[in-house]
Amino acid sequence: MELYAERGFEQTTVAEIARRAGLTERTFFRHFADKREVLFAGTDSLRELMVGAVAGVADSAAPIEAVAAGLDAIGAFLQPGHDYSRRRQAVIAANAELRERELIKLASLAGSLAVALRGRGVAEPAASLAAEAGLAAFRVAFERWTSEDDPPMLPELIGQSLDQLRAIAAAGRTPEPQR
Amino acid sequence: MELYAERGFEQTTVAEIARRAGLTERTFFRHFADKREVLFAGTDSLRELMVGAVAGVADSAAPIEAVAAGLDAIGAFLQPGHDYSRRRQAVIAANAELRERELIKLASLAGSLAVALRGRGVAEPAASLAAEAGLAAFRVAFERWTSEDDPPMLPELIGQSLDQLRAIAAAGRTPEPQR
Repeated sequence: MELYAERGFEQTTVAEIARRAGLTERTFFRHFADKREVLFAGTDSLRELMVGAVAGVADSAAPIEAVAAGLDAIGAFLQPGHDYSRRRQAVIAANAELRERELIKLASLAGSLAVALRGRGVAEPAASLAAEAGLAAFRVAFERWTSEDDPPMLPELIGQSLDQLRAIAAAGRTPEPQR
Repeated sequence: MELYAERGFEQTTVAEIARRAGLTERTFFRHFADKREVLFAGTDSLRELMVGAVAGVADSAAPIEAVAAGLDAIGAFLQPGHDYSRRRQAVIAANAELRERELIKLASLAGSLAVALRGRGVAEPAASLAAEAGLAAFRVAFERWTSEDDPPMLPELIGQSLDQLRAIAAAGRTPEPQR
């Protein structure tokens, strides 16, 4: 990560990363499929945390409440690493391939969230809709959290973002489109 | 498309596609960056339609109503090509790289939708939230439309999907997560 921030993702080689981390290249490739994966190594931990939080919510809670609990767990986990997250976002924002990889990882989190909701008895398509809308709210909160110097806490931003989603969805019925 | 459906995406070469279409390979590459792009050639037309429909909605309409109009325009455009869309989805579903490309194209549509909303004076983050939640609703509707033999019309499914999103978002306040 330090190397990516110092000299850009494209210019950094696996050999340099491995040297900085005190590893051989062979060891590096035992842990990561390629140099992009270093930036996404935390995805599975986030997934486990999120799924665990969703499973821990009272049975009576609405799907969107379970989604909120899952995202809140991610937010609480990421909060202490604000500086790291900001540097990482800067590296990702500067590289189209990394932006695509990030998109794919977020979509896979949405997929896991939908599975967790189905595990609570939420039917499709409500499970997928709630999961994807929730991840959209998370992305917006995370974007603000990593772009401001002294932002509110991430869990608070996630809560605001979900409130906004609620307000947007509640505004107006689907109109007859103008032809 | 026919060739992809007949023998699978991986097994089809650009030379074969060009021959079937009566083109030289050189002409093929003048139109498409690679063989994947054949499947996504319609994205820019969909984008223009969607953005045009959003711009045509009354100024007084809520952001989610403008989103609904944009998605409805896409639905009305795709409806006559149900068979094509089903074959295309089967090809994409069978190939991880194509699924990722589809994800990226849908994200780019959400980005354009957010831009169109900002053009109507919708502030961030409401514009991005409304756009991404809307695209989630579209994906769910499209998924059902391409997976059933005799589904309701796509614009109707999109409307149902947006109604469901509204119901999900309205259910319950954000709870205190269980710790």
